[in-house]
Amino acid sequence: MQRHFDEELADLNKEILRMGGLTEESILKSVEALKARSAEQAEQVITDDKKIDELELAIDEKCLDLLALHQPMAIDLRFVTMAMKISTDLERIADLAVDIAQRVLQLADKPQLKPLIDIPKLAALAQTMVKEAIDAFVRKDVELARKVILRDSEADNLRNLVQSELINDYIAKDPSTAPRAVALLLVARHLERICDHTTNICEDVIFMVEGKVVKHHLEILHEKQNGGSK
Amino acid sequence: MQRHFDEELADLNKEILRMGGLTEESILKSVEALKARSAEQAEQVITDDKKIDELELAIDEKCLDLLALHQPMAIDLRFVTMAMKISTDLERIADLAVDIAQRVLQLADKPQLKPLIDIPKLAALAQTMVKEAIDAFVRKDVELARKVILRDSEADNLRNLVQSELINDYIAKDPSTAPRAVALLLVARHLERICDHTTNICEDVIFMVEGKVVKHHLEILHEKQNGGSK
Repeated sequence: MQRHFDEELADLNKEILRMGGLTEESILKSVEALKARSAEQAEQVITDDKKIDELELAIDEKCLDLLALHQPMAIDLRFVTMAMKISTDLERIADLAVDIAQRVLQLADKPQLKPLIDIPKLAALAQTMVKEAIDAFVRKDVELARKVILRDSEADNLRNLVQSELINDYIAKDPSTAPRAVALLLVARHLERICDHTTNICEDVIFMVEGKVVKHHLEILHEKQNGGSK
Repeated sequence: MQRHFDEELADLNKEILRMGGLTEESILKSVEALKARSAEQAEQVITDDKKIDELELAIDEKCLDLLALHQPMAIDLRFVTMAMKISTDLERIADLAVDIAQRVLQLADKPQLKPLIDIPKLAALAQTMVKEAIDAFVRKDVELARKVILRDSEADNLRNLVQSELINDYIAKDPSTAPRAVALLLVARHLERICDHTTNICEDVIFMVEGKVVKHHLEILHEKQNGGSK
């Protein structure tokens, strides 16, 4: 029974990794579509989202089966229940990539507003955070999880930069840019929210491994970091 | 053992109701703060969020205890695991009320841009959807859950109305309104996302009761409604 259960857990790990990989790809493709102002590439992101939705359901069903058949305890119980929470987070992240694709559809037939610099930076950060959060989960690596949580403020800063530039340098100077500028501003918001979801995943990883709650106690993490860098 | 377990489930129900009530209150208060442009009221929403964060943790711990001690099956297993997902949704909804409060802090010391009509309408819709989604969960009422899911398009429509009005009638006509208009536009987005979370809760309710997945298959629901109203 135990050996069989371990194999099931290994399968669950693989499914989460696969869902994480597809989600990362969606973020990448949505921002590639934005850079190319390609409606076709944006549509592809929207179509591909179905696969990710299906994976969420498959993972949830597997978790429920594992709970019902094996009645796991301690870290195994936390692993299975956190896998259900993480599949929800990944599905929402993929939905945010779809939101970005929908902004691309609005922008595709309009002239380029500005060369994109900070948005691709924010997208790269979001993609890395998703990758590392999932790695932290499958490897049960709390140190990596803590590292990812600390990067969330970088995402906030980049989003603030993008937002003030669009408002002050574009909309305020030439109101006819407003629809395009607002679309880009929303893309930055979507990316920042992706980063927020990765910190939720990492909080769940720490809880899973340590049985300790870090959620809503991030101040402590930040204080530690600030203390350490003095 | 069974009687004890039933009492624990009733307690869990009560906690979810309590968290739902506090979350509704946060939405209401954040929009009251917006209408009054009151930084003080906005700060209150941000402070109150701690209670909701704590409830999420308490509910998760209770669910893990229930799973470990009672190893529930079938609908009880789905009830406990869905309670964990729903506590996450409620916590995110409360975070969105905090996001609204943060927009209020940006607006509080600036003159009013426009009388608010559609945003309070959207807020009332969001609040009702949260209330009904939680009622559907605690009463295991799939009909109510389906009704809430169908209202999500009302939220999308209201948000689109708010967004076009702000872009076309304010930003495009007077770019100096951009920072205030963008803040209001984001409030409408936050409210719409609250409605999205309530549909996630309702999908989980239907899954819990029927053991059937409706997530990602909403087209069917909409088709049924359209067919039925012919």
